Amino acid sequence: MNRSSLGLRIPQGMRDLLPEEMAVQDQLEGEIVSLFKLWAYQKVATPALEYGACLQPDEEKDDHFYKFFDRQGQVLVVRPELTTPIARMVSSRLKGSELPLRLCYSADVFRAESNQNREFRQAGVELIGSDAPLADAEVIALAIESLRKLGLKDFQFNLGHMGIFSGIMDELKIDGQFRLKYQELLAHKDLVGIEGIVERSEFSDSAKKILSKIPHFHGQAEMLEEVLEWSQSPLLQEAVASLRKVYEYLKDFNVQEYVALDLGILRGFSYYTGVIFEGYVRDIGYPIVEGGRYDALYGEFGYALPATGFAMNLGALAERMSPKTKPCPEVLVYGEDVSQVIQTVQKLRQQGVQAEMSIGNSSPLEAEKLAKRKGIGQVKKVL
Amino acid sequence: MNRSSLGLRIPQGMRDLLPEEMAVQDQLEGEIVSLFKLWAYQKVATPALEYGACLQPDEEKDDHFYKFFDRQGQVLVVRPELTTPIARMVSSRLKGSELPLRLCYSADVFRAESNQNREFRQAGVELIGSDAPLADAEVIALAIESLRKLGLKDFQFNLGHMGIFSGIMDELKIDGQFRLKYQELLAHKDLVGIEGIVERSEFSDSAKKILSKIPHFHGQAEMLEEVLEWSQSPLLQEAVASLRKVYEYLKDFNVQEYVALDLGILRGFSYYTGVIFEGYVRDIGYPIVEGGRYDALYGEFGYALPATGFAMNLGALAERMSPKTKPCPEVLVYGEDVSQVIQTVQKLRQQGVQAEMSIGNSSPLEAEKLAKRKGIGQVKKVL
Repeated sequence: MNRSSLGLRIPQGMRDLLPEEMAVQDQLEGEIVSLFKLWAYQKVATPALEYGACLQPDEEKDDHFYKFFDRQGQVLVVRPELTTPIARMVSSRLKGSELPLRLCYSADVFRAESNQNREFRQAGVELIGSDAPLADAEVIALAIESLRKLGLKDFQFNLGHMGIFSGIMDELKIDGQFRLKYQELLAHKDLVGIEGIVERSEFSDSAKKILSKIPHFHGQAEMLEEVLEWSQSPLLQEAVASLRKVYEYLKDFNVQEYVALDLGILRGFSYYTGVIFEGYVRDIGYPIVEGGRYDALYGEFGYALPATGFAMNLGALAERMSPKTKPCPEVLVYGEDVSQVIQTVQKLRQQGVQAEMSIGNSSPLEAEKLAKRKGIGQVKKVL
Repeated sequence: MNRSSLGLRIPQGMRDLLPEEMAVQDQLEGEIVSLFKLWAYQKVATPALEYGACLQPDEEKDDHFYKFFDRQGQVLVVRPELTTPIARMVSSRLKGSELPLRLCYSADVFRAESNQNREFRQAGVELIGSDAPLADAEVIALAIESLRKLGLKDFQFNLGHMGIFSGIMDELKIDGQFRLKYQELLAHKDLVGIEGIVERSEFSDSAKKILSKIPHFHGQAEMLEEVLEWSQSPLLQEAVASLRKVYEYLKDFNVQEYVALDLGILRGFSYYTGVIFEGYVRDIGYPIVEGGRYDALYGEFGYALPATGFAMNLGALAERMSPKTKPCPEVLVYGEDVSQVIQTVQKLRQQGVQAEMSIGNSSPLEAEKLAKRKGIGQVKKVL
């Protein structure tokens, strides 16, 4: 049955990977996953379909997931991320495993309504069962090493802490609509908007000053001294101490040069509770790495464990790179005697040579032309 | 927000892959994809979501796909197979490529309501642009080599031809309800059912004899002589000639011993038009490899090309195998001086050693215990 014009098209935000594009993504994935394994992370997979009740228990929240009903009337979600599914998995089949548990993955994730790709390959790690700043430092260092391993040089990580933002907001007794609005503007780095709502607000001058400063707090450890003076809230004091510790460890990992502290970063997924970070690569306008500590998520699955991790948009990186070698067979084998051609090509393959068998083609001129057009370097005639 | 009991569960037919299970599947996939490349097939990917209009233009057909509406009201399908999406891709971005085109893939496919896994890894190839029996022989030989490469010995391929069945049915003027019913019983190998409907039918005795014989026609090339006598229909005569040719080539590929001719095989996907085949592995009650020629599909995408290929259920094979090596780091590094521990573990990783850093653990006894429980062979204390 002939396809309608819709049937010839690819759905919005989806993409095919042609041989060269696939070769790049596979190569990047191979390098990243071996690095994860060098760092003692074991690869796992979760299904592409999960219950909505697992991924988004708050049914009223407006998320950007692909969702549908299964035949029992339950909501299924095409996985938008793997941190939550891995929490489900660890809380069931891996419950009682020796801790900390280090897991990694590389899988496609799906985001309906995204202006970027709506399906993209994401590689990431989860370090489960430790609340130590050293655990945070390990995953941040691994994220940075991952980009270095891919040959990237021009990238920058921003490091923040959910507790600093919350500590200040609690201390200033800022909540409700203003806090949500402020958070939203901060997430979009809308400095003009922030200035506007702060000026129009009725907070004290000192509170206004802090609120105006937060988005600009980007730099090295020294700036934390000033933050400590803003508030005596234990939440904030602990957050600063923890952030400082993580930042120091990054020096031991020899990656501190890539990292700046930034109090204005906020993450899209709501599960983060502690140190958070994002990594930017030159010429890509959105974070290519996102991660942080999420100490409350496992408790929601009945297995209270602290955890930290990150996810990297491997697809976006692959899209911007060229393959190291063009995917193409090495030899084209042709000849009149089909049995001989088959046997020759089979022998080459046994020797590890990528060999293409010519089908219905026994003229030298045609074989040469075909090989040239396909980019095959060698032509072998069987007599 | 705490998960409901549904939110702790994995949807029906889905599965997680724990580290050992993942290691097996990745290993199998790596071996199979390298073999495909040795045979000159280039790896591609298509999206997990396609328009229903692409995968199933006949909206009234009862398929077993995961389907839902996108926000524009179009039906999206979670891909149940890759042959059709690859036809869409070749008919658009690869239109005009040098032919024949050899493409391969390894990706998860989805079958709602299946009693087996509803998501499983499928690896396959497509040989596009040749109608020669040699092309069919190549993909069948590659399917068999794939199972051999995975170390399997106890498997069997059945080879048939859509034209033989259709030729006989046309010759006997069998169509409508009887033909559909017969086909359905044949697909389920329901010999008793077939005997019943044939006996109760009003066809001639010679027709009844043929209809009773078809399900039992399983064997070597000699049996084709008898089939030729059943009918002079050109469709059947050509089908037999083509099947015979493919079977002969399999001898040159040195894989004929794994193949029997079988006139009773019918494939689930409706696009097959010529030689069809299925591969069974011992102890798995459904075909692990399915393939054949589909010369009409590309025309439906406005790019009329003959094509042949196969798909292999890699997930089902992986589920039944053990990993060659247990996925586990080689060394656990611990000590009191965290900076020293970090530097030591980093040095090991630079040397290619899979090294785990102990977090918050500096007692030799605890480190030894942890390593033992995790299966890590070596423990290194940093002084």
